[in-house]
Amino acid sequence: MKIEILDTTLRDGEQGAGIEFSPDDKLKVIKALDELGVSYIEAGMITNESSARFFESLRDVKTENARLAVFTRTCKPGEEPCCSDLLKAAAGAPVPVATIYGKAWLYQVTEVLRTSPEENLRLIRKSIEYLRDCGKEVIFDAEHFFDGYSDSPDYAMSVVDTAFSAGASRVVLCDTNGGNLPDVIGLVCQAVCEKYPNIGIHCHNDMGMAAACTVSAVLAGASHIHVTVSGMGERCGNANLNTVVPVLQLKMGFQCLGDRIKDLTRTARTVNECANIAFDEKEPFVGGYAFTHKAGSHIDGVMKSPKAYEQISPGSVGNARNLLVSGLSGRSAVIEKMENYLSERNLGLTKDDPQVKKALEAIKERESRGYEFEDAGASLALTIDDALGNRKSYFTLLGLKVIIDEAGSIDNTADEPFTASAVIKIAVDGKEYLTAGEGNGPVNAIDEALRRALVRFYPEIATIKLTDYRVRVLDSRATASSVRVSIETTDGVSVWRTIGVSEDVINASWQALRDSMEYIIRKTQEKKTEL
Amino acid sequence: MKIEILDTTLRDGEQGAGIEFSPDDKLKVIKALDELGVSYIEAGMITNESSARFFESLRDVKTENARLAVFTRTCKPGEEPCCSDLLKAAAGAPVPVATIYGKAWLYQVTEVLRTSPEENLRLIRKSIEYLRDCGKEVIFDAEHFFDGYSDSPDYAMSVVDTAFSAGASRVVLCDTNGGNLPDVIGLVCQAVCEKYPNIGIHCHNDMGMAAACTVSAVLAGASHIHVTVSGMGERCGNANLNTVVPVLQLKMGFQCLGDRIKDLTRTARTVNECANIAFDEKEPFVGGYAFTHKAGSHIDGVMKSPKAYEQISPGSVGNARNLLVSGLSGRSAVIEKMENYLSERNLGLTKDDPQVKKALEAIKERESRGYEFEDAGASLALTIDDALGNRKSYFTLLGLKVIIDEAGSIDNTADEPFTASAVIKIAVDGKEYLTAGEGNGPVNAIDEALRRALVRFYPEIATIKLTDYRVRVLDSRATASSVRVSIETTDGVSVWRTIGVSEDVINASWQALRDSMEYIIRKTQEKKTEL
Repeated sequence: MKIEILDTTLRDGEQGAGIEFSPDDKLKVIKALDELGVSYIEAGMITNESSARFFESLRDVKTENARLAVFTRTCKPGEEPCCSDLLKAAAGAPVPVATIYGKAWLYQVTEVLRTSPEENLRLIRKSIEYLRDCGKEVIFDAEHFFDGYSDSPDYAMSVVDTAFSAGASRVVLCDTNGGNLPDVIGLVCQAVCEKYPNIGIHCHNDMGMAAACTVSAVLAGASHIHVTVSGMGERCGNANLNTVVPVLQLKMGFQCLGDRIKDLTRTARTVNECANIAFDEKEPFVGGYAFTHKAGSHIDGVMKSPKAYEQISPGSVGNARNLLVSGLSGRSAVIEKMENYLSERNLGLTKDDPQVKKALEAIKERESRGYEFEDAGASLALTIDDALGNRKSYFTLLGLKVIIDEAGSIDNTADEPFTASAVIKIAVDGKEYLTAGEGNGPVNAIDEALRRALVRFYPEIATIKLTDYRVRVLDSRATASSVRVSIETTDGVSVWRTIGVSEDVINASWQALRDSMEYIIRKTQEKKTEL
Repeated sequence: MKIEILDTTLRDGEQGAGIEFSPDDKLKVIKALDELGVSYIEAGMITNESSARFFESLRDVKTENARLAVFTRTCKPGEEPCCSDLLKAAAGAPVPVATIYGKAWLYQVTEVLRTSPEENLRLIRKSIEYLRDCGKEVIFDAEHFFDGYSDSPDYAMSVVDTAFSAGASRVVLCDTNGGNLPDVIGLVCQAVCEKYPNIGIHCHNDMGMAAACTVSAVLAGASHIHVTVSGMGERCGNANLNTVVPVLQLKMGFQCLGDRIKDLTRTARTVNECANIAFDEKEPFVGGYAFTHKAGSHIDGVMKSPKAYEQISPGSVGNARNLLVSGLSGRSAVIEKMENYLSERNLGLTKDDPQVKKALEAIKERESRGYEFEDAGASLALTIDDALGNRKSYFTLLGLKVIIDEAGSIDNTADEPFTASAVIKIAVDGKEYLTAGEGNGPVNAIDEALRRALVRFYPEIATIKLTDYRVRVLDSRATASSVRVSIETTDGVSVWRTIGVSEDVINASWQALRDSMEYIIRKTQEKKTEL
């Protein structure tokens, strides 16, 4: 049996505390989820100019597997749909699907919406009809369905009935407050699925049971599930795609993603990276610890027979076994990247050559210190160059000084940047050059000084522009712990990412800047050689 | 009905990757769990001198509620219990209880233990009898029970029978690999509980369902549960005490901790602190986000009626509600926070006073520059102080210099931190003080210098510790664009977040550090005034 997946990372996920996606991040998430093979991607709500602009940018986005959806709500009591700004914006969005929520709990209708049960049904009917008339496929989220069903099953069922009669393609039963047990979810779902096909489920994790509740609903007949990557979402989060999908597909035999499920670990990491949050390595299936064995008896057992301490094969979700705590990210991704590197550069090496094995070890060692090469292809290429003894020295740093100096009356509440000066001494072809740079803060000053030093030898440096700069602390010992800096650079044609890891944000930034410049120089030099 | 809780944070919890407790930490954890009211605390296994010394130190530990347990395993094939070092050590430990695991899955008996089914039963019987004869209460963990029951129910049942006949007080059914669904756990538990009383359950989270599985077992008749604080444990962890206990007691009416459940949030934080891991704020019930509302419609609803978006009252587990101020939540969250601020501080102002309106405008203006007061409640409080003209000046920054200096042969591929020195001049009560700090990178150096300057006036500064540090670029013009730094600080009891925004990562970090220190000083001073 096929189970439809609607991913709501960009909508309910973004309602999680600390989660925010930039428009560029959102496009990356859409691409990753589409490639993974989900059926629907809920891309957000249109509430202001910036969200309207983002949806406008989706006009040019072609997806292979997923139908894109805009999220909205029913019009207000006494209002007509065509007078609701929210509904109008959703109706006009260049995506084929609208998901719309309405109330299914009488208590909410009277206490929060403050209207009559009949008026609530009218709002649901009219709003769905309006979106249908504007050409949308409409998915209806019956908010608080389970609490509503427990108070008044008849009213809750009349909401489902109204939504389907008005033309909804799916009605999704939502445990909005996350307070219902899997058994209750299953029983209620069964009662609804006996009357209607195309029932969906939307669970929250406030009792740590969103995955179990979602599976319980599917067993009771639901064929459409709402999930988010890593369970991002309001309060304790939503049902976790990375958990629910392997359980349904690999443990229970439902059809979800087919072979693409092997990309699950990589996709989960990409989306977490976009959200700029630390990946939870304890996550079932995709976490770095999910197949990491620590107890001696477990390691012994798993070496005799993996089944002894592993519920499924790690490779089935693109993850890998770890017998020691190191190199947390999936190994297969790195091996794949290595193979790409070897075929692109045509060095006559295969992955079984001792040199290549040494390079893999070097990558593994760096990963264990917090380097995450998944998304930083430019730094990975340079690391492989280095391990194979092929890294060219285009410039050498001989010295670096940065001075940040703010003297005199600084207002305690001021937020003007501190001015920083950097002095850099580099050597190119054996000759030394000393340059200075000034900027808002030390990273900017180092960037300026380095560019000035390099541009006279490598004019391509003038064309590049940093387009993203991120910092992440790698463990919880705060300012004295390791940080990972990740930067994105463009020359107007291509885009590359580099990283640095250090206990010091400036040193980590330096590594990422250095790699970025080295990468564009390497690329330009190699093009010249080809010509 | 009373449900017994056995906490295994110090044993199975410590088998989690990255988890390690010092002997002192272990004593703190035992004290915290005993005060919380659990029935048993599994304190570890005796495998070497240091664990033997730790157990020896338990001789003087008096507990009020919990019986302490030592963990061990059955003797080896062909061995007598009195010849097993592990069993002898457990038998001699100065604690009243021994938990002992043995195999309940034929496959494990033949493939991992590599012995006969009969010999395995003999090992279980003899080992339990030996521990009983040495005066211990014996709890038997039937490892891999559910996988074993599915392969051969008769053999699995004969293991339970053997353990009880040998004198075990409890037999615990373990889903060691975490691969069984709640429904399966429930059905198998029911079959066992129909034959025997005093059945326990031990679940792992490899399918994100450890909580649901534990609850399912209790509904099927299990009266003894194994849990760990925050679900620490091998691979994806164990059933989470902080989740399972509130569900059983507050949602389902079982007796677990009585009134002491109000200490749950505090206990969870204390134990995480001992484990030196970052607390997962998304944790159900006890996490900082568990009752944190972000979507505007949720905030609006919860203000009209908490039940609208909260499954239980936050206070019932010692937690609190939190309304986030963000782009998604519209204005009502800011207004709510402002109202909380006004009522807490008792200034005789209402939200309609012109001063308060001015303060709201000030917050709005900061938000437009990228300040995300989200859950940076500490910076928000100081911003409101400031806008109302009530911000106290505990210290004034008069000057700041940072020097980063790396001269000489820097290896292009090196990633050692640059050493930074910071010099800070501050004024407190009109007097000037100059201090220096050194660190791995400028933020660390500034933190050091500022602490040295402040601690002589405000000794509370010595108790605080940074627990998170994040940087985010606010638009895509990269190193010269604005960054937002968010830091989290704790004094061991509460946790607060502060932020800074600037074009310069150092200045933004400075703002966040400054706010954090100002916040703890303000809090301490106000407490003194109250006394």
